[in-house]
Amino acid sequence: MTDTPDEPHEPWNTLSRTPVVETPWLVLRQDRVRTHTDVEITYTYLERPESVFVVPVTARGEVVLLRQYRYPVRAWCWEVPAGAWDADEDGVAAAARELKEEVGGVCQEMRSLGAFYSANGVSNERFHVYLALGVTLGANQLEHTELLHVVPLPRDEVLRMAHAGEITDGPSALALLLCEPHLAND
Amino acid sequence: MTDTPDEPHEPWNTLSRTPVVETPWLVLRQDRVRTHTDVEITYTYLERPESVFVVPVTARGEVVLLRQYRYPVRAWCWEVPAGAWDADEDGVAAAARELKEEVGGVCQEMRSLGAFYSANGVSNERFHVYLALGVTLGANQLEHTELLHVVPLPRDEVLRMAHAGEITDGPSALALLLCEPHLAND
Repeated sequence: MTDTPDEPHEPWNTLSRTPVVETPWLVLRQDRVRTHTDVEITYTYLERPESVFVVPVTARGEVVLLRQYRYPVRAWCWEVPAGAWDADEDGVAAAARELKEEVGGVCQEMRSLGAFYSANGVSNERFHVYLALGVTLGANQLEHTELLHVVPLPRDEVLRMAHAGEITDGPSALALLLCEPHLAND
Repeated sequence: MTDTPDEPHEPWNTLSRTPVVETPWLVLRQDRVRTHTDVEITYTYLERPESVFVVPVTARGEVVLLRQYRYPVRAWCWEVPAGAWDADEDGVAAAARELKEEVGGVCQEMRSLGAFYSANGVSNERFHVYLALGVTLGANQLEHTELLHVVPLPRDEVLRMAHAGEITDGPSALALLLCEPHLAND
């Protein structure tokens, strides 16, 4: 958007950028920054790749959820297929690849529903939401660190779960509620 | 939930836990872990405090949004009031405190709408969503690192923005869509 006097494009000045920890999936940075109040601070945050979240819907109107173990929260979560968006592919291709890898899915139509930051105070991660329609399921191909079950459920039950707070993965819950107007009963 | 044979409570074994970076707002950990496939890996993730996200609705039916600058994404984002849940308070008190600090708000009723992980593959952060009804606005009290404008907007316009992907902060977008059934036109 166009800058307004109240919204300067870059109100804080970055004085230095230090990558403190680097792994294939994240960089922890500690930047020295001068804020809009002219105070110098150290800001610690993650750099993360862009990601895609895909809501798969079958021709029978089922939504394909994952029941997935997540080590950082030590819990099994209801989720939709998701993963990193590789730098050399476009978003629809990334969504189609994750759909194939995680649930063996192929779709007839892929709709883009927006992009969102997952935790904008502490990470630059942005996830892109897709709705995959006319999905057929097959064998998935999991990595050795992925532990999940594929669970197709009726659309109405999945939307009930999302509204009731039972989809504890936030980006997945948002993806499902964004899809709701596209999943009206025929 | 009760463990099932397919969902052991703790399918991965933590062999060691190393805090690599610690700030008042996060700890970056690198754990040595043995996975369900009996492979040893290092898992890098953030420990973060619980947080609260509050959707404030005035007696006139306006939803109070923030337009906030976020350094990690170098952008101005549409958001709802949010912040860390201090260890010594309950969730409703934390929500009421953030409402007061960020928009000078006081509410007549606070409803809890669920708790969600923001990025469960890389962080244990969980955010709790609240709907604040009958809100009156006053003077806010910002910290020197907070840069934001308070923008009350008509409910229908805010819901349109959320469905259109214009609320780019994911937890805020989810909070607004969770509130939608509670904000039906009277």
